[in-house]
Amino acid sequence: MEEADLLISPRWVIPVEPHGAVLEDHAVAVADGRITAVLPAAEAARRFPSAERVDRPAHVLLPGLVNAHTHAAMTLFRGLADDLPLQQWLGEHIWPAEQRWASSEFVRDGAELACVEMLRGGTTCLNDMYFFPDQTAQVAADTGIRAVVGMIVIEQPTPWAATVDEYFDKGLAVHDQFRGHPRIQTAFAPHAPYTVGDDSLRRLRKLADELDVQVHMHVHETANEISTAVAAHGRRPLARLAELGLLSPALAAVHMTQLTPDEITTLADTGASVVHCPESNLKLASGLCPVADLQAAGVNVALGTDGAASNNDLDMFGEMRTAALLAKSVAGDPAAVSAADALAMATINGARALGVAADTGSLVPGKSADMICLDLAHPATQPVYHPVSQVVYAATRDQVTDVWVGGQALIMQGELQLAHAADLEARAEGWRERVARTDV
Amino acid sequence: MEEADLLISPRWVIPVEPHGAVLEDHAVAVADGRITAVLPAAEAARRFPSAERVDRPAHVLLPGLVNAHTHAAMTLFRGLADDLPLQQWLGEHIWPAEQRWASSEFVRDGAELACVEMLRGGTTCLNDMYFFPDQTAQVAADTGIRAVVGMIVIEQPTPWAATVDEYFDKGLAVHDQFRGHPRIQTAFAPHAPYTVGDDSLRRLRKLADELDVQVHMHVHETANEISTAVAAHGRRPLARLAELGLLSPALAAVHMTQLTPDEITTLADTGASVVHCPESNLKLASGLCPVADLQAAGVNVALGTDGAASNNDLDMFGEMRTAALLAKSVAGDPAAVSAADALAMATINGARALGVAADTGSLVPGKSADMICLDLAHPATQPVYHPVSQVVYAATRDQVTDVWVGGQALIMQGELQLAHAADLEARAEGWRERVARTDV
Repeated sequence: MEEADLLISPRWVIPVEPHGAVLEDHAVAVADGRITAVLPAAEAARRFPSAERVDRPAHVLLPGLVNAHTHAAMTLFRGLADDLPLQQWLGEHIWPAEQRWASSEFVRDGAELACVEMLRGGTTCLNDMYFFPDQTAQVAADTGIRAVVGMIVIEQPTPWAATVDEYFDKGLAVHDQFRGHPRIQTAFAPHAPYTVGDDSLRRLRKLADELDVQVHMHVHETANEISTAVAAHGRRPLARLAELGLLSPALAAVHMTQLTPDEITTLADTGASVVHCPESNLKLASGLCPVADLQAAGVNVALGTDGAASNNDLDMFGEMRTAALLAKSVAGDPAAVSAADALAMATINGARALGVAADTGSLVPGKSADMICLDLAHPATQPVYHPVSQVVYAATRDQVTDVWVGGQALIMQGELQLAHAADLEARAEGWRERVARTDV
Repeated sequence: MEEADLLISPRWVIPVEPHGAVLEDHAVAVADGRITAVLPAAEAARRFPSAERVDRPAHVLLPGLVNAHTHAAMTLFRGLADDLPLQQWLGEHIWPAEQRWASSEFVRDGAELACVEMLRGGTTCLNDMYFFPDQTAQVAADTGIRAVVGMIVIEQPTPWAATVDEYFDKGLAVHDQFRGHPRIQTAFAPHAPYTVGDDSLRRLRKLADELDVQVHMHVHETANEISTAVAAHGRRPLARLAELGLLSPALAAVHMTQLTPDEITTLADTGASVVHCPESNLKLASGLCPVADLQAAGVNVALGTDGAASNNDLDMFGEMRTAALLAKSVAGDPAAVSAADALAMATINGARALGVAADTGSLVPGKSADMICLDLAHPATQPVYHPVSQVVYAATRDQVTDVWVGGQALIMQGELQLAHAADLEARAEGWRERVARTDV
């Protein structure tokens, strides 16, 4: 006999698995933080009479969104510099600001702003790559969000680490610190093929296998990355990663705007995931990821916002819409990447890319109750012919009313349940004043 | 001595003219519905002590947005059919639904839903093209929004008119009915080059000149439109419109995804405006408007959402962001179409394309007080280095708190001030039930 301590009854449930399904007048039953049943609302009321009830009569309930690539703490650089050529943006603004300001305190405050922004916008799981991952992990643990935190490796000294050994040592210390945490996991996060050498990549691949963690890496972000690599080493970065044994289901390759048909086949054969970041790719004019081709080949495509310095928000609803719209244009086919496909990219595919699909990404009995409610009683989402279409093509992040992670209510009827976020805006403003003073 | 009966004091004013300006701690003074001054807040308080005060300490005040191309009543078909090839979408869903359901009542309810959606999302002026424009004009007049309503001409019988003469007669009757209205104007709205013949175009050009109204037309939406025209008539549609004398500052040419360098020069030379609809173009895989090239040539580029059946919302904040992001990718240049450029496209450029720039589109003394407040105290728009960047790249429509048109408060602190919109959702739901029953 199943138990339930919480019963959510929305107008519609979109479980994501099965693909495209919409259940009307159904409820989701939760016990001890896990989904125990998805069933007709009337039956749920009979079977679980003593469960706490949450009724949301104009709402759609869906899995929490998975932001499969971000640099959470960079919220504090949101809008610092826009509309600039890439090298000027990085070289004159972002990198100097990071060298000057990245610190435990900065990452703690920036990650907290990011987690609050993501939770309010319906994202319940993030895949992070940034310095001071110990802080990001701690903030995620404290705010109640689910996170895969990157053990970053980059062969340049930064405020986080001076040498390759120090990156590894500090990353592994974070892994040890959060080992066994129900919501916090780690992944190796080598920055990119052009900033991490073969020895480091071999070393981290071996460690990733041993620790059973994912590898999260920027790959083929721009045409320049490819041409530089070909000129220097005679081969494309993906070929090098293949030789180093990195192409496997453990790899989440971010951006991938430059792909040959053979490379798409290789990705499909090896089971590596692609994390598509459409708004960042557009804003930085990086190139266009061939999402429909990847999908047709059977590659798992997840979605990420990238950092707030290049997006400029961590809004997975906006990212889903942009992904669905852009893929049609890139493919020259209005039938490419449907609304249901985009929603899967933002949920279950993200969970797969992060290696957390057993716990999150769809509303299926046994998984953690990572769920969000969206109020469709807004003039922009009326009338409702097809709820999935409204969620992807017409709703905004601000229609999210309720958010649960592991059955814990983190947002209820639009109100954040975190007490300690009260001075967050003042802390963000304090950082802005300091950063702006040193930005030239 | 200036007067003021209303004084709005936000944290930041973005007047749009001058381009890119941000005024901190300024106020906008309004008298009899018109802007009388934009001045430092302290000075405003001294000069206008008896004016009604609206203080918005975490907000940015900017001109109301101008949606330069929409089919308002199609909100009732929002999400009816998505992710389909263009001809199947039109031929099997949209056109049959229009033939079956378009009526005075349908357009009245659909236009009201559209006006409420647009006002809540900060759009204070629309350029409409649809059947039963008498209804759309009346709804706009009643809701308080500013509108340019299209006298539609299409050489096909529809529920609105059976013959070309009837289209002209009924359109001109709408023009006469609203002549002299402070917020409602008309334009000729020939549907497209492929649905309106030379005789009709000559006739409406002459009438447009006499009545001093704009011409609002879909032009060069898809590659197929061009190739079909070239095969049939031996020339591209824009060349035909030029021969018919339609290229002038009175023309708002919508979509324009297919443009040669010579055509861009012609547009610049003749002063015609382009109305860019990026989300519709992406969703229908229509092609890509070369916005940065048009801008460099000096062409006035405005922004439109298109109808809700192909977008699927009337959200000019989303459209601005998509326009700025997409233009960089199309141009291959992250410095193309800055945030300030995108905001100008969504305001003053739209007003120019519609022929209403003397009244709206920027916060300049003498213009109508068409203004919106946006609350930036949201985790996704903190911290604020550059308010224009936050407005374009990070804010959503749902951060709009206050909307004035002609100085009249239509939304105050998020609350719609219209009493008669109460049963709007029920009416939309009634139409959905009827339309869904006949959609196959």
